[in-house]
Amino acid sequence: MLDFTFHNPTKIVFGKDKIEELNSLIPEDSRVLILYGGGSIKKFGTLDKVKDALKGREIFEFSGIEPNPKYETLIKAAEIVKKENIDFLLAVGGGSVMDGTKFVNLAANYDGEDKTDLLNYGFNPVPVSKGLPIGTVVTLPATGSEMNGGAVISYNGGKFSVRSPLSFPTFSILDPTLTFTLPKTQVANGVVDTYIHVLEQYATYSVDARFQDRTAEGILKTLIEIGRDTIDNPTDYDLRANLVWCATMGLNGLIAAGVPQDWTTHKIGHELTALYGIDHAKTLAAILPALWEVRRNEKGSKLIQYAERVWNIKEGSDDEKIDLAIRKTREFFESLDMPTHLSVYGLKKEDVDTVVNSLECHGMTNLSERGDLGLNISRKIIEKAL
Amino acid sequence: MLDFTFHNPTKIVFGKDKIEELNSLIPEDSRVLILYGGGSIKKFGTLDKVKDALKGREIFEFSGIEPNPKYETLIKAAEIVKKENIDFLLAVGGGSVMDGTKFVNLAANYDGEDKTDLLNYGFNPVPVSKGLPIGTVVTLPATGSEMNGGAVISYNGGKFSVRSPLSFPTFSILDPTLTFTLPKTQVANGVVDTYIHVLEQYATYSVDARFQDRTAEGILKTLIEIGRDTIDNPTDYDLRANLVWCATMGLNGLIAAGVPQDWTTHKIGHELTALYGIDHAKTLAAILPALWEVRRNEKGSKLIQYAERVWNIKEGSDDEKIDLAIRKTREFFESLDMPTHLSVYGLKKEDVDTVVNSLECHGMTNLSERGDLGLNISRKIIEKAL
Repeated sequence: MLDFTFHNPTKIVFGKDKIEELNSLIPEDSRVLILYGGGSIKKFGTLDKVKDALKGREIFEFSGIEPNPKYETLIKAAEIVKKENIDFLLAVGGGSVMDGTKFVNLAANYDGEDKTDLLNYGFNPVPVSKGLPIGTVVTLPATGSEMNGGAVISYNGGKFSVRSPLSFPTFSILDPTLTFTLPKTQVANGVVDTYIHVLEQYATYSVDARFQDRTAEGILKTLIEIGRDTIDNPTDYDLRANLVWCATMGLNGLIAAGVPQDWTTHKIGHELTALYGIDHAKTLAAILPALWEVRRNEKGSKLIQYAERVWNIKEGSDDEKIDLAIRKTREFFESLDMPTHLSVYGLKKEDVDTVVNSLECHGMTNLSERGDLGLNISRKIIEKAL
Repeated sequence: MLDFTFHNPTKIVFGKDKIEELNSLIPEDSRVLILYGGGSIKKFGTLDKVKDALKGREIFEFSGIEPNPKYETLIKAAEIVKKENIDFLLAVGGGSVMDGTKFVNLAANYDGEDKTDLLNYGFNPVPVSKGLPIGTVVTLPATGSEMNGGAVISYNGGKFSVRSPLSFPTFSILDPTLTFTLPKTQVANGVVDTYIHVLEQYATYSVDARFQDRTAEGILKTLIEIGRDTIDNPTDYDLRANLVWCATMGLNGLIAAGVPQDWTTHKIGHELTALYGIDHAKTLAAILPALWEVRRNEKGSKLIQYAERVWNIKEGSDDEKIDLAIRKTREFFESLDMPTHLSVYGLKKEDVDTVVNSLECHGMTNLSERGDLGLNISRKIIEKAL
């Protein structure tokens, strides 16, 4: 096991109608800025419930945080935070709204003149030393943003990781019933995003971290069991509750503690979303199997463990096990109506150069758990993913 | 899945030589009280390393916290905390030292005159609203006290749960090498204590909480794999690191979130320790299999799941699966030189009344995940455990 530090102070309040607890979770004299995306939280009554629970507090709203939230949008909210002396931020939405809210907090409290500085720190914490408390009400299970300190922000054709210990929400309300109205494709995105988050912390090389491995495998097996079912039966509480909790547990640091990680799939995926507007999870579903085909030797022992423990593949040579595990992974994604090839989105051979150039332009020249995945290998992966 | 709140703010610092990080974890101007048990942390140099790391701070020591820490001992430390204006508590030891330190903190900050009041709240938080930060350096993996808000305190022939959100350590240092010098019997105690903690959160009735179930099963399988090996190879880092991390994860609220719990085994075990001085884990190893034999119907579906997933028992009727799972559990404990019968410790039929009376005296008349386990059933369990 590798050395690690694990610290996750977010309070989770899980269950039906837990929005009511906002009244005890946010101080009574707060000036609260509610941040959200489009109209769905209005349409389905979530915003009204939130406001009801916050009665007596001074409430401000900022709407219009888009999927893949943009710097330019968020910076406007940061101005409101300062102008209105906001002292509590409440994100109501999915990963984009939560990520966006985290960035609003950092931008509002960053002393530098040029707030785009904050986009340059990658996986290192940004130099901001104070922030407002953030609460979240989660309406889309996928990104784990409700229980971690990370965010991904879009700017100028790129997607940038922005991290800070200040970005851990103080609390997150996870009410599975709030996700019942999601379109099927977004639920499928959530299942696949979670599945691949877990694999990026698992399919590397073994360091004999047994709790972490088995917990990761438990999430994967659960998603395989419930993925299609929770898409088809959106109002089945237990199915959805299991998806919501797995999504949170998949990216809150728990299964990452003490193990190597390989975020190559996400990094190539971010370029594809930025360049072609393909949904985040859909880029991952195409890249991951291709990555494994190209890196089957480097990841051999963990891919065999994945084959045996997650897919119960006990027969055949090591190579056959890996092949079958990759095939079953593709079949699982496809069973969720999630394509595993980029050609579905119209990408062609001539696009490969564009993506590789974009990776180079964003400094993504040494990816993988070992830092040995250069642009030539990324090229092979993207070609295979077409 | 049941509704739940999960909040665990403890920072874990895991790895070899992490004691050095005390220097950054405890403020430089602190007045630190180091609390510990007997001489082993002196003998093996741990105390010296701790003091080295804390150089420059005002250091006080309180030694002599015994196994099953006593109210009378701890109240003396609470007086030192007040007299010396201590502002940071550092527990260096195992569960008893950590539990004791938590109680010292609460007692020092409780406004009431009679500090024994604090023993009367059971699983509810005690009425103490402020406390000092607590750090821990863990030398014995077992109780999970390093990452939870609970403590068990001995007083007047009883063992009492004392809980508070203030009792979560601010940080805990988990250096597996600090546990290399433990006697074999204490490591076996740690393995069994952890194993049974997990089962008390698992072997109840199903609420379709898949992440929690699989994470619990992952810890159980890991303990079965490494239990004997880490006793026989105490300086194998990875084996011990896996035990240490499983012990923490087994009782930090993670696998308890959203599921029913049955702490009957611990409650009967506490009486046995208080009455006969049998090691805590050794009481559990005798009670748990007996409990399952008596409650096999109430716990049927989870015991079958345990048989199938943890022990890979796929053949036979439901009853046969349960029987075999109980037998394999006994065999596992015995393989760690951990008896599964109380007669080994000299207990006889005539002791059953004594234990039952003691349960009654401490109000333990409605145990189990359903609150339907009365004294007559406790009697049967104790009889079977003889």
